[in-house]
Amino acid sequence: MRYLVTGAAGFIGAAVAKRLAGENEVVTIDNLSTGKEENVPEGVEFIKGSVADPGLIHSLSDRKFDAIIHIAGQSSGEISFEDPVYDLQTNYQSTVLLLDLARRCGCRKFIYASTMSVYGDHNPPCCSEDTDLVPKSFYAVGKTASEHYMRIYSDQFGIACTALRLFNIYGIGQNMDNLKQGMASIYLAMALSDHKINVKGSKDRFRDFVYIDEAADAFIKALSRESGYDVFNVCTGKATTVEHIIDIIKDALPYDIDVKYTEGTPGDQFGIYGDYSKIAKELGWKPEIDFETGMRRMIAWAEKR
Amino acid sequence: MRYLVTGAAGFIGAAVAKRLAGENEVVTIDNLSTGKEENVPEGVEFIKGSVADPGLIHSLSDRKFDAIIHIAGQSSGEISFEDPVYDLQTNYQSTVLLLDLARRCGCRKFIYASTMSVYGDHNPPCCSEDTDLVPKSFYAVGKTASEHYMRIYSDQFGIACTALRLFNIYGIGQNMDNLKQGMASIYLAMALSDHKINVKGSKDRFRDFVYIDEAADAFIKALSRESGYDVFNVCTGKATTVEHIIDIIKDALPYDIDVKYTEGTPGDQFGIYGDYSKIAKELGWKPEIDFETGMRRMIAWAEKR
Repeated sequence: MRYLVTGAAGFIGAAVAKRLAGENEVVTIDNLSTGKEENVPEGVEFIKGSVADPGLIHSLSDRKFDAIIHIAGQSSGEISFEDPVYDLQTNYQSTVLLLDLARRCGCRKFIYASTMSVYGDHNPPCCSEDTDLVPKSFYAVGKTASEHYMRIYSDQFGIACTALRLFNIYGIGQNMDNLKQGMASIYLAMALSDHKINVKGSKDRFRDFVYIDEAADAFIKALSRESGYDVFNVCTGKATTVEHIIDIIKDALPYDIDVKYTEGTPGDQFGIYGDYSKIAKELGWKPEIDFETGMRRMIAWAEKR
Repeated sequence: MRYLVTGAAGFIGAAVAKRLAGENEVVTIDNLSTGKEENVPEGVEFIKGSVADPGLIHSLSDRKFDAIIHIAGQSSGEISFEDPVYDLQTNYQSTVLLLDLARRCGCRKFIYASTMSVYGDHNPPCCSEDTDLVPKSFYAVGKTASEHYMRIYSDQFGIACTALRLFNIYGIGQNMDNLKQGMASIYLAMALSDHKINVKGSKDRFRDFVYIDEAADAFIKALSRESGYDVFNVCTGKATTVEHIIDIIKDALPYDIDVKYTEGTPGDQFGIYGDYSKIAKELGWKPEIDFETGMRRMIAWAEKR
């Protein structure tokens, strides 16, 4: 099979491309803004460029893809406030251009890395796919709009479109240099480099953490969908607090860590976790790695870097 | 007072700017893509340019505005399918840039021309502000995203943001040369120029028609809002079918009109009308001109052009 996987120099994109490379032809586009070329798995054709560049995407029109898996994008809510126009271009324009590429080159499947951020804050904080969408950052608005685009492309042009609402993905391979994206990786990176953690916001905030290998598996399982538009949570159903993450890090590292709490970032959600029964039932996906196990694995990897 | 009204060379923008000009300082930006410079009301400062141009919007940072009324935009669902990237830039990027301008220049009020298209198709077809949003065109997705932006800007930066979900606005001054936007004006323009009406879609489709002067009045009333984000339907609560519009046109014109029905356009809603009780209660706005009266007024104007 032939796949276009965008963002394969990044954490999630690389993991998905790696699963597909070998027995398939895999092409990736990445602008290396936060990703690194060395992350692109072996055997994957690498095109350096922006997924929001109309000329580049148009130039792929005579290629044939069995599926487009769109993972590239600006993925920090915080940065979306600093540069909303850049966010809009990478996160919306890219989806429109790639959906249009799918239509033009006869590709019948489109899978998209959406986010739990589309939900915003809810009480109770456990979200299922039919929870109202109240996005709190521009980043999350862009993901919401991209989901609408997919629904429309599916209705109008018959492309099987799947949005995966990723909760917090963490694990080996995560970018330890980007301090604006990825809660567990940010705290761990600070602890390793400075023996200090500066937490932006409350220690009682909580998230639902999914180990990278299992997140990649959700993309592979979504390839089985043949028609229509649908959306699935990729989550574990378990809430992990900021405090608990920090306790694991402190416990695993052989020195003292100084923890300081400062003001939160705009548009940050307080607490959220998800219901994964839909993806379990319809795609046979189930999380098995508990957070402490995964986090200790990641810490051991990060210490050796 | 000092106002920035975008799109005052267009139908609705001109009507709103006219209401404000005279006793206030009014500035407008319009790229004249569908608007005409002669529509800009007397006494209004005209800046020719795109509301999606970051350089232009940034250049206004040292101006002072008491309110920004954002009406400019690509307003055809049909064109949004032909050029989704252009649509995205005019309809999303402009809102982000102008909200950011409001924040930087200390403007406390932002009013936005949203659309009934954000609702999509519903059964029953009468929509109130809490009806689910299932946009069917890229144009409508952009308007939905812009509403989210306003909610976030209001929450984060304390700007009073008001989205007016305009139903079908019609009347004297409507662009009779644009055959891709404005149901009543399209049919009337075809009838006047060729004695023929080519209807794209079913005669049983229906819309809720609001006379231009009353729509402009809704913007003026929205200026009274001092805080928070809110959204209001601007509608009459009455459904008018395509067939009824055509009957009025046929009855008013002194020659035979040949009517032909062809395939609909992508993302076209079948039928919708709205509940205006929220805007009546909270802003004291009420529609009074019935469709036949308004349409005959418009036909008399259009015949003399």
